[in-house]
Amino acid sequence: MRIVLASNSPRRRELLSGLGLEYEVRTLQGLDESYPDGLSMEEIPQYISRKKAAAYMLEEDELLITADTIVWLDGEVLGKPADEEEARQMLRKLSGKTHQVITGVTLTYNEQCTMNNENKQHSFASVSQVTFAQLSDAEIDYYVTHYHPLDKAGAYGIQEWIGYIGVTCIEGSYFNVMGLPVQRLYTEMKKLNLDPLIPFRGK
Amino acid sequence: MRIVLASNSPRRRELLSGLGLEYEVRTLQGLDESYPDGLSMEEIPQYISRKKAAAYMLEEDELLITADTIVWLDGEVLGKPADEEEARQMLRKLSGKTHQVITGVTLTYNEQCTMNNENKQHSFASVSQVTFAQLSDAEIDYYVTHYHPLDKAGAYGIQEWIGYIGVTCIEGSYFNVMGLPVQRLYTEMKKLNLDPLIPFRGK
Repeated sequence: MRIVLASNSPRRRELLSGLGLEYEVRTLQGLDESYPDGLSMEEIPQYISRKKAAAYMLEEDELLITADTIVWLDGEVLGKPADEEEARQMLRKLSGKTHQVITGVTLTYNEQCTMNNENKQHSFASVSQVTFAQLSDAEIDYYVTHYHPLDKAGAYGIQEWIGYIGVTCIEGSYFNVMGLPVQRLYTEMKKLNLDPLIPFRGK
Repeated sequence: MRIVLASNSPRRRELLSGLGLEYEVRTLQGLDESYPDGLSMEEIPQYISRKKAAAYMLEEDELLITADTIVWLDGEVLGKPADEEEARQMLRKLSGKTHQVITGVTLTYNEQCTMNNENKQHSFASVSQVTFAQLSDAEIDYYVTHYHPLDKAGAYGIQEWIGYIGVTCIEGSYFNVMGLPVQRLYTEMKKLNLDPLIPFRGK
């Protein structure tokens, strides 16, 4: 079985590599990432990860990994900022508060040895809490100007300068905040008997 | 003021660089890292970081950063394993449990504009909790054989494979577990009016 990571995010690629898995990357541009009203914070990114999966045609013996990460503050989703001004606004909102980062992951694969050719699908979500210190306007401005976080939900990368100087505490998985809950992914793969993909089992 | 990092750890260098600070590295080999009985888990690494500082002679206008990280499990310090067998034993102890990682940091510097030439010193400790999933012998063996964690307290690096597949949850600072609580360090430097060293303030 071959692993296919459907993600444009270099951070997700780095994280999946950290598990020691071999995989190929397949991406599509311009996918619709909208979702219906009324979903919970855990359901939203799982819904989007399934929507991403639906856009791919799987070959035999492939395991497709799709994921979506959202930032949730006081019942509101903070998406990717449209411009630097919105990035500054988001960081001012996050300053001095605790928010949630939720990554939804969907594994899509062909069941081996079955008569029909239907794909199986398994989704899960991982929630981490992140607490920011009070950020000054000078700190926010320095970060936005130097790091241009327009490709990041909530306008920050925890592995960048703002995470170093600003994050006082996290609760949950750090890698989940970066974009992929790798420990949970590993556990779910073991549950689904996808063990042969794990380095020391496949050898 | 120039920052001097007294550490052989490439992880601490990477973390300090992440704050955007410029610094030089100065190291001594074979420092005595023993400590008296009866110290608390927060006191032990602070004591060792002060002991490390005492081994250095500071020039004028230098800020010396020394640090020590310990792993604390059920009232016991897990140091660096002597060999691979001890590394395996430590990981079997950590498996399925929550432990504490404590980094003690000491800042030593000359007070500017004082008549005497005495060094000022300020120590603090940061505590993170780390929870490991149940690790199988195969997983422990794969990690120890491929990553040789003999230079790491508790026989693991959270940023390595074992952290990816094994750590279910952390509470506190991730960077502290890696070896330097950078957010706290940044805050303490601001308190001590060492702001000019911070990138956007010094320019």
